[in-house]
Amino acid sequence: MRRPLTARVRLVQMEVLPGRPRENTARILREISSARADGVELVAFPELAVPGYLLGDAWEQPAFLRECEACGGRIREASQGLVVAFGNVAVDWARCNEDGRPRKYNALFFAADGAFHGPDGVPQPFVVKTLLPNYREFDESRHFFDLRKLALEAGVDPRDWLRPVRVRGLTIGGLLCEDAWDGDYAVTPLTELARHDVDCFLNASCSPFTRNKNHKRNRIFDARARAAGRPLLYVNCTGLQDIGKTVYTFDGESCIYDGCGHQTGGLAPFEDGVITAEIPLRGGVAFGQNVKLSDDETPSIAAALLYGTRRFMQRLAVERVVVGASGGIDSAVVAAIYGHLLPPERLLLLNMPSHFNSRTTIGLARELARNLGCRYADVPIENSVELTREQFAGLVVQGPTGTHAGLPLSTAALENVQARDRSGRVLAAAAAAFGGVFTCNANKTELTIGYTTLYGDLGGWLANLADLWKGEVYALARHLNDVTYAHAVIPEGCFTVTPSAELSLDQAVDEGKGDPLVYPYHDCLFRAWVERWQRATPEELLTWYRDGVLEREIGYDGCVAELFPTVQAFVTDVERWWNAYQGLGVAKRIQAPPVLAVSRRAFGFDHREAQFGPQYTEAYSTLRQKLLGQVNVNHK
Amino acid sequence: MRRPLTARVRLVQMEVLPGRPRENTARILREISSARADGVELVAFPELAVPGYLLGDAWEQPAFLRECEACGGRIREASQGLVVAFGNVAVDWARCNEDGRPRKYNALFFAADGAFHGPDGVPQPFVVKTLLPNYREFDESRHFFDLRKLALEAGVDPRDWLRPVRVRGLTIGGLLCEDAWDGDYAVTPLTELARHDVDCFLNASCSPFTRNKNHKRNRIFDARARAAGRPLLYVNCTGLQDIGKTVYTFDGESCIYDGCGHQTGGLAPFEDGVITAEIPLRGGVAFGQNVKLSDDETPSIAAALLYGTRRFMQRLAVERVVVGASGGIDSAVVAAIYGHLLPPERLLLLNMPSHFNSRTTIGLARELARNLGCRYADVPIENSVELTREQFAGLVVQGPTGTHAGLPLSTAALENVQARDRSGRVLAAAAAAFGGVFTCNANKTELTIGYTTLYGDLGGWLANLADLWKGEVYALARHLNDVTYAHAVIPEGCFTVTPSAELSLDQAVDEGKGDPLVYPYHDCLFRAWVERWQRATPEELLTWYRDGVLEREIGYDGCVAELFPTVQAFVTDVERWWNAYQGLGVAKRIQAPPVLAVSRRAFGFDHREAQFGPQYTEAYSTLRQKLLGQVNVNHK
Repeated sequence: MRRPLTARVRLVQMEVLPGRPRENTARILREISSARADGVELVAFPELAVPGYLLGDAWEQPAFLRECEACGGRIREASQGLVVAFGNVAVDWARCNEDGRPRKYNALFFAADGAFHGPDGVPQPFVVKTLLPNYREFDESRHFFDLRKLALEAGVDPRDWLRPVRVRGLTIGGLLCEDAWDGDYAVTPLTELARHDVDCFLNASCSPFTRNKNHKRNRIFDARARAAGRPLLYVNCTGLQDIGKTVYTFDGESCIYDGCGHQTGGLAPFEDGVITAEIPLRGGVAFGQNVKLSDDETPSIAAALLYGTRRFMQRLAVERVVVGASGGIDSAVVAAIYGHLLPPERLLLLNMPSHFNSRTTIGLARELARNLGCRYADVPIENSVELTREQFAGLVVQGPTGTHAGLPLSTAALENVQARDRSGRVLAAAAAAFGGVFTCNANKTELTIGYTTLYGDLGGWLANLADLWKGEVYALARHLNDVTYAHAVIPEGCFTVTPSAELSLDQAVDEGKGDPLVYPYHDCLFRAWVERWQRATPEELLTWYRDGVLEREIGYDGCVAELFPTVQAFVTDVERWWNAYQGLGVAKRIQAPPVLAVSRRAFGFDHREAQFGPQYTEAYSTLRQKLLGQVNVNHK
Repeated sequence: MRRPLTARVRLVQMEVLPGRPRENTARILREISSARADGVELVAFPELAVPGYLLGDAWEQPAFLRECEACGGRIREASQGLVVAFGNVAVDWARCNEDGRPRKYNALFFAADGAFHGPDGVPQPFVVKTLLPNYREFDESRHFFDLRKLALEAGVDPRDWLRPVRVRGLTIGGLLCEDAWDGDYAVTPLTELARHDVDCFLNASCSPFTRNKNHKRNRIFDARARAAGRPLLYVNCTGLQDIGKTVYTFDGESCIYDGCGHQTGGLAPFEDGVITAEIPLRGGVAFGQNVKLSDDETPSIAAALLYGTRRFMQRLAVERVVVGASGGIDSAVVAAIYGHLLPPERLLLLNMPSHFNSRTTIGLARELARNLGCRYADVPIENSVELTREQFAGLVVQGPTGTHAGLPLSTAALENVQARDRSGRVLAAAAAAFGGVFTCNANKTELTIGYTTLYGDLGGWLANLADLWKGEVYALARHLNDVTYAHAVIPEGCFTVTPSAELSLDQAVDEGKGDPLVYPYHDCLFRAWVERWQRATPEELLTWYRDGVLEREIGYDGCVAELFPTVQAFVTDVERWWNAYQGLGVAKRIQAPPVLAVSRRAFGFDHREAQFGPQYTEAYSTLRQKLLGQVNVNHK
């Protein structure tokens, strides 16, 4: 009998619901039936498609693990007449993880004809993930035991256990996500598997959306597939999963790299669907065509934010939303996002003016509500703020040294009273009365330096824009007007008005007074601290400044010398914001709402930090002293 | 020449300041001088004594790493005439971590006579930590490369690289913290080192206070030392380090296990100091004496909370504190903690009554302030809450279908308005006016089920009691009165009044109405969900209930049948709180203040969770149906 030249495979890009194994399994079982009916020989599902991926510490519940195992058993039983590859947690109840709990593997199962089929000569009847990512939001080694530790324990070289699975005439190199992103590891699973004569590689992933990630994946996976000369099937999930403070969307983008430099895909990001293809078996020929990727990130960021917001609303059963609309760009973008997802009567915009708010911004908030056709109300905060001011001025404080009259509030304290009055008093109560939630409109630039008030504008159920720099908020606003709505729902005035908190006379927008930031520059400066893989500190900034390469290093289009006429002015600015970023900024982020992540470094679980205060290296102090010609260095 | 029979060693129990290598190094250099003057042959410092341990992602800053390396160089230069063992980060700039950043080791350095001395036959001139803990708050594999990966990369069995360091005539088995807590690992460093003929083992640690941890450590370390028949020197740091949401104290408790079942220590927990001892070299004799440990945890918890609060205040330069004093036990305990740490004029207690508050609790708050001799004021919230109620009732909302009058607040909504008025309006403004911070008085029982208001009583700079169950708060209160103050600063009425939020007529304490919890039972129930190493879920609870072993399993002294007359009542209660714990409770904890940790499972970084909602296993549903005799199971 001649071996067939091709095999029909199907990748199922599905939304995986975290923590809901029964629902995920029901979906998988339906897909198996339909694959069998369509003559598919191998149907593949994403990594951890049964339990979900970002589950916090739910992996420590034995009851949950037993449920996942039972679901895996149902899938095994349903695998008559085809190969079903799917991700699940595998539990070895008899052996310990390094935390003393039952041992768990992030596993890729191959079920066929009612049985599980593991790699050649490996004791486990499933593929054990070899490379467990342990950076950014990834934290797999907390719960899972990897192939390297398993091999070490058995006295085997882990490379000897990287073998293909042979099942129903197919030879498949099974990989789980990171196993193919192997550039920084001593063990490279795909390369090891390629030593055996495989028909194809299958990479089952649960990989969140990150801007530009797909470009990088295409480069790496395509190179790996070409080096091996065999197709690489990549199946990723869609959906939304969170790790408390940080919320991730999963974009899918499943595809097939054919081993000859071509890629077959075609599913829209964030949408469920299947890819069915005839792949050439060993000795077969190339197929497929190139897929062109766009370089402009804004459309994909907009898609991720809209998708993530919609899914998060569904997940938490949120059907009505209140947005504090100041007339500025941030709240306008947030309102436009929800306006796109909700019927207009379920979106309520509140403008909450004090006497510091300009007619300009009040008018813009109203215009925005009109454009969205949603609900709108004015809720002045003047009387409430005045009541607080008076109450504190008239307070009687008993003390160890007698009775004092008054605990007066300073101007700065009253600015924060206004912010808390708006969110902690008005928006929180309005959300309750309206039967919904209120939003946090903070952007990443503000959140970096804590230019926001705790229990005030930093409150909210979700911080939609907190992973976008200010400049990116403007770009997103344009995209919402031009593409998403295809008309100007966000008033032009929101783009041109001076960004300002309008909490005092020093922040009068009609006089061009506003936030103490030059956004195009400070966006770049802060990005160097937060997002650079080798993270910059004041030491690097001052070095680059001295060497005349600052603009290039931080990606700033303008000229730093125009912003800061002297070294002293430059240094003062850097230290002011570094102190804020590493000081009160940390305290504020600890109590901030969940952040919807789009960058490769979002605040929260992806950006761990502690309250040890702003620090400067000795090398910085030395350089600073040299450049300023000063002897006394006066910083914390 | 005869080999000497003993060596003089010194363990330096010092406060390590996180992120401040220059300050830590200055302290280390002073201790080296004094050790040399005292004729010490080996002076040992804690793990990561130069950089600190809980630093979030500061490990990603190359500038910080360079600074740590330079500090290590200074210690090396200062090591003339003795052996200096200290923990620091070691960087291999030429090789990659698995995250693509420069490779970092958690390393134990042995410096002597101006040079570093590594283990016999190992390429690195320092001890590389073998076992990196990756559970609870520990997260070392995120940043550090371990000896197992290093050996795998080099094609060496890691056991072959577990060798002692030979320096100045001493043979020392160097270990870092987890390396000796090896029960759940395939590689056991201490056992491997014991195959070589060592004079002593040195375990340098950075190990946070956890209740009962020292009992366990004594058991394990003593057994290891006895098995090897050689002394084990244990040096741990003091101080306070945090990982954002969760704040840890380090208790020191350094000591020497002599290898014959005895232990020498004598330093008080949370205090800096040194242990100097003559240890027998190979062929020498036993020494030391047993140290008796107490079984009552309350004194050590009180010590940890007082120490941690004081250090956190110093770290963040907090000198004045405002406490919202309701008359209940939680706020009384918090006030007593700060009253012990602050001069009375820097502590301000505010009672913020509405018409729901009883004379009983108002009187207790005043009595507490009198007992503490601190500042005190009444700040009624009635007018402000009424203003909000009226403003919402009179609001005009424009909408897509016309104009609506009023957005009235329900009774439940008004309860939360009161809570936010107290914290978000009054306490936050009072803290600003007073020049300090305000506290969060939530306990662990409330925080588990989110029985607290966001931006209300869940606000504050630090949640001192959020790792104590309600019953433990009472025990701590007794300890503060009986021991810390040695007189009754917390009024007896605070112990006997019904615990209540006093936000509605349904919570009238003088009628015995209060919180919807039977604290002695619910403390135990919630502990089974949160703190059990194999975490319980409703499935286990219902199984234990069926089997009549619930009380024993959860450690409840009473009888569950007396609380719940029917199965239905039991099930309803479990599901109510499970839904709260896994539902809104998660959302609230995400925005909660930092928690001062004392248990072996504190909320925050030690208890990762995601917002995927309350889930029940199929096994639970089946069992529930069987016990209730119902067909329709109605839960989320």
